[in-house]
Amino acid sequence: MDVILDVDTGVDDALALLLALRAPDVNVRAITCVDGNVDVDSVVTNTLAVLDAARAPQIPVARGCPQPLAAERIHAQQVHGCDGLGGVRLADPGREPVEAHAVEVLRRTLLDSAKPLTVVTLAPLTNVAVLLTCYPELADRIDRMVVMGGSAGFGGNDSVAAEFNLLHDPEAADIVFRSGVPITMYGLDAFYEVTVDTETAHGLSGSTDPAGALAGSLLLAQAQRFATREVTIGDAGAVAAAIWPEHIDTDPHHVRIELHGAHTRGSTVVDQRARRGILAGRASGAHNARVVWSVDEAALRETFLTAVSRHAQPVSTVA
Amino acid sequence: MDVILDVDTGVDDALALLLALRAPDVNVRAITCVDGNVDVDSVVTNTLAVLDAARAPQIPVARGCPQPLAAERIHAQQVHGCDGLGGVRLADPGREPVEAHAVEVLRRTLLDSAKPLTVVTLAPLTNVAVLLTCYPELADRIDRMVVMGGSAGFGGNDSVAAEFNLLHDPEAADIVFRSGVPITMYGLDAFYEVTVDTETAHGLSGSTDPAGALAGSLLLAQAQRFATREVTIGDAGAVAAAIWPEHIDTDPHHVRIELHGAHTRGSTVVDQRARRGILAGRASGAHNARVVWSVDEAALRETFLTAVSRHAQPVSTVA
Amino acid sequence: MDVILDVDTGVDDALALLLALRAPDVNVRAITCVDGNVDVDSVVTNTLAVLDAARAPQIPVARGCPQPLAAERIHAQQVHGCDGLGGVRLADPGREPVEAHAVEVLRRTLLDSAKPLTVVTLAPLTNVAVLLTCYPELADRIDRMVVMGGSAGFGGNDSVAAEFNLLHDPEAADIVFRSGVPITMYGLDAFYEVTVDTETAHGLSGSTDPAGALAGSLLLAQAQRFATREVTIGDAGAVAAAIWPEHIDTDPHHVRIELHGAHTRGSTVVDQRARRGILAGRASGAHNARVVWSVDEAALRETFLTAVSRHAQPVSTVA
Amino acid sequence: MDVILDVDTGVDDALALLLALRAPDVNVRAITCVDGNVDVDSVVTNTLAVLDAARAPQIPVARGCPQPLAAERIHAQQVHGCDGLGGVRLADPGREPVEAHAVEVLRRTLLDSAKPLTVVTLAPLTNVAVLLTCYPELADRIDRMVVMGGSAGFGGNDSVAAEFNLLHDPEAADIVFRSGVPITMYGLDAFYEVTVDTETAHGLSGSTDPAGALAGSLLLAQAQRFATREVTIGDAGAVAAAIWPEHIDTDPHHVRIELHGAHTRGSTVVDQRARRGILAGRASGAHNARVVWSVDEAALRETFLTAVSRHAQPVSTVA
Ligand SMILES: [Ca+2]
Ligand SMILES: [Ca+2]
Ligand SMILES: [Ca+2]
Ligand SMILES: [Ca+2]
Repeated sequence: MDVILDVDTGVDDALALLLALRAPDVNVRAITCVDGNVDVDSVVTNTLAVLDAARAPQIPVARGCPQPLAAERIHAQQVHGCDGLGGVRLADPGREPVEAHAVEVLRRTLLDSAKPLTVVTLAPLTNVAVLLTCYPELADRIDRMVVMGGSAGFGGNDSVAAEFNLLHDPEAADIVFRSGVPITMYGLDAFYEVTVDTETAHGLSGSTDPAGALAGSLLLAQAQRFATREVTIGDAGAVAAAIWPEHIDTDPHHVRIELHGAHTRGSTVVDQRARRGILAGRASGAHNARVVWSVDEAALRETFLTAVSRHAQPVSTVA
Repeated sequence: MDVILDVDTGVDDALALLLALRAPDVNVRAITCVDGNVDVDSVVTNTLAVLDAARAPQIPVARGCPQPLAAERIHAQQVHGCDGLGGVRLADPGREPVEAHAVEVLRRTLLDSAKPLTVVTLAPLTNVAVLLTCYPELADRIDRMVVMGGSAGFGGNDSVAAEFNLLHDPEAADIVFRSGVPITMYGLDAFYEVTVDTETAHGLSGSTDPAGALAGSLLLAQAQRFATREVTIGDAGAVAAAIWPEHIDTDPHHVRIELHGAHTRGSTVVDQRARRGILAGRASGAHNARVVWSVDEAALRETFLTAVSRHAQPVSTVA
Repeated sequence: MDVILDVDTGVDDALALLLALRAPDVNVRAITCVDGNVDVDSVVTNTLAVLDAARAPQIPVARGCPQPLAAERIHAQQVHGCDGLGGVRLADPGREPVEAHAVEVLRRTLLDSAKPLTVVTLAPLTNVAVLLTCYPELADRIDRMVVMGGSAGFGGNDSVAAEFNLLHDPEAADIVFRSGVPITMYGLDAFYEVTVDTETAHGLSGSTDPAGALAGSLLLAQAQRFATREVTIGDAGAVAAAIWPEHIDTDPHHVRIELHGAHTRGSTVVDQRARRGILAGRASGAHNARVVWSVDEAALRETFLTAVSRHAQPVSTVA
Repeated sequence: MDVILDVDTGVDDALALLLALRAPDVNVRAITCVDGNVDVDSVVTNTLAVLDAARAPQIPVARGCPQPLAAERIHAQQVHGCDGLGGVRLADPGREPVEAHAVEVLRRTLLDSAKPLTVVTLAPLTNVAVLLTCYPELADRIDRMVVMGGSAGFGGNDSVAAEFNLLHDPEAADIVFRSGVPITMYGLDAFYEVTVDTETAHGLSGSTDPAGALAGSLLLAQAQRFATREVTIGDAGAVAAAIWPEHIDTDPHHVRIELHGAHTRGSTVVDQRARRGILAGRASGAHNARVVWSVDEAALRETFLTAVSRHAQPVSTVA
């Protein structure tokens, strides 16, 4: 699977990057950075540092929009720490971002590919929204977009009704959800489900695969910050869902983004009436997204754990 | 239990009235009518006719607001038929409504009662909102308000996100939910759960209790109109929930009414974060309503069926 | 002219009361009080005290809604002082309000009148909106409603786009403007125009008519509070406009109240396209209000000054 | 003056282009096209055809965003005709647009210029908003942006409160007005003021300057379409205002774009309180735009007429 990742790295974006780098048969074609958890320059630095730490091959990393469209900026440093990596210190990156803007990198990568690509967005949708506003014809070059964002029945996290990524740039989300791109919405209904316990994280942190070791350290750092025994893999779950769709349950729905509510701005409005027997006749609007209602939590954890330390060195058994 | 019912009769309001009239230890102190399923004059006529048909004692029935506050009017004749009773023809009522406006009847009934009363609202909240705007001090005279309205995790029925009663007058709902009155929100999460099958309805329609017989006829008429074997008792469930709270599961929440959304106007915004472990610290706002998340469907049906034909004549066994 | 006044007294409501009490051929049938500049209990006390000070005949004064409909409360004590009368101390009132609620007094006064009445509203429109929600048929009993409120081309005062009375209860304003009652909108385009200078106010304060003397004192107190030489007569201008329409310039327009804007909530949206030549064909909506675009400032001031001290004692000329 | 024009050509955009091409000391560095009056491909074609007709030198013309950000699309073919040029048929253009997207051309032109440029926008602000979202640091490369759009005291044209360009993409307008770029808002308060009568237009249409001749023909066509004797020069007024600021009256204001109103979406909310004596203390927000409140209509017309046929051939006087 050839994939573009759009990120605001972020602890769980880091986990997601590590998974995508190690997952069998996954080819990361480009990584685009956007304002979100932290400012875009920190996102770029964090992303490059994660690639270095995982000894990843050269992959284009591009700096994108440093601010949302019409929304006021919010950041999420209470979740990810001041630097966005939860306090895990990585070496200054040795590699550099490409010169072109993320929107331009998205455009070229989609055009250069022989076949439509999978795009996984783990961040506010500003970059993708600008792409689709400037070049709506590129919707056809996207095979599927797995969006970490929104909420169907769970309620919000950053506000009472809205999830962080979409609340950070509701207009961008609206543009993407109206674009015609086939969307899989991996929202809060799934996001917090896939967790790793501290014992497992500790084991992982000792992996001889540097990706696994870093994943373990990041998970342990979050466990410590939130004083909890179970840590969600967050964005990494969305990557897992893109790779192993057999582990998620989805239904197609008409989904709109509320832009104008006093309490509901940035929320995903999922028309559930089609599933409600007597109300089915009142459902309106074409299905524009598959909503992930639930996941096989154990299967996604296992695939994540197995993949992320796949390059572990065999233990040398010396006499 | 002394109770005031606020209605927009309506098939399921009729079922609710019949239940309240027959339920043991329930004393209906007043019935107030409001614009909703049908226009308020039809609501008054239907309500009086149901009381007649059930051979109810004299109970004050008052005409209330003929239109919502700031909202455009919507009716629900596709659900309840042109006359609001789903085509079941009742004799013209022999009794009359009281002269005073519903808001005045609410006020006097609350003031005249030695102890705070239970109010069950089965309709748009215009009457109650006007009461609490004119006389906010009467909030203390309401022991509990069971509101049939809203939706927590179910989505909407009349719009993608909103339930009919609240969408019909969102501003009224906002006033009530901010009033300080202790609210039990019996919304769509419960509303469609309690059903009666056509066989049972058929048996009920032959009851020698005229209340039971009418209930059976109304259920059969809805079954026929919607070509379904299971018919919800709807508003009657809210009355049952008020009488037998042991059959419902509730949690306290901060609930606000969205007035300004393009897709979410009239929806109930329930802050679920307090129940979400890691998000508990982000919940905001005082608990102002107990949300009915689920019901003991079988128990509520049985209590309804038993009560509504309670005055059935014993079969005379002649030699 | 028989008139009902709806007030939130308030310095300039006091001026308006004094004008209405003294204007020739004006008969004040009732005064209804509402939450606005100050809380409704202070409004009642201030109103009664003004009637006492002016030695007014018995006029029913009724306490009305103590809070707006769906809006959060705002008060205007920075304009009117803590007590609402700008620091002018009046004796505790000797008279009492009527027992009935303002909405009930509005209803009965309209019904008891042989012919439709003029209603002048100088405050948030909560009382009138509740009246017209409960009894929309009473719109026919109102010959004309002169509304002090809104703004056509002036911009707002309490917010960037909205005038205080309408911003205090936008939903009430929406109800009134959609009610079918013929409205004259005396908004900010006129409100600040009619002024009295301190010299004239000083002369007035020495009037032997207690109404004139009080008016003079109130004007002087405002001049001192705002350190200005010219003081607007404010609400009194709306009463003057109702009595002497020959001194105002109006045009009929379609006017709506914005309920949902982030910057424009509570503003009056006046369709000016009908007056714009090339755009006339795009105007939409029936004319529901006459907008006061300008006033004959000098004429309104003179009529105000002449009327308010009309009961001055002739100077006794002793030999 | 070096200038970039952003257009949705459109009859009056054509007039504006002709003026900019002929105005002394004006150097058009680039023309960027955007969805607006007509679809962006027609805008490109019309723009190139106007340049051809005026025998303009080579100027980069770039195709931009084919749709607004979050708003539904509206077009204005009732004003500009199906082709956008009011029925005036031009030869198919001989020149081609540049390959790069308008946003990229804006970026490069700003970066390539030794000093900050003037940008005149005559269309929905999508292109500029995308530029400033992707590259907010380029705000410093814009000396001044003259925005044809909005309305301060005039009311709306395409809706009751909003002007067409801003209503077509309110979120884009919001981005631009919050960007820090110094804005001169040439809105409806000025837009319809500068007119040419049919007699003058007829004279112009016979000019030996092809620019003047085309301008005359376009004006005559509009006069015929709307059956009027006076035709506004519209967008050309904004170009004239940019070139000859001595002919416009402006005041600095805090201006916000309303995104959320039911009646006011897309309107410019101008804080006028600073100019309102007693209200000055309530004004809030930094001045982010100079609002054109009025224009010297005669002077702008004359400068337009003189400039647009500046290349007229001297009459050859043959013996
Ligand atoms: Ca992320
Ligand atoms: Ca009902
Ligand atoms: Ca007042
Ligand atoms: Ca244009």
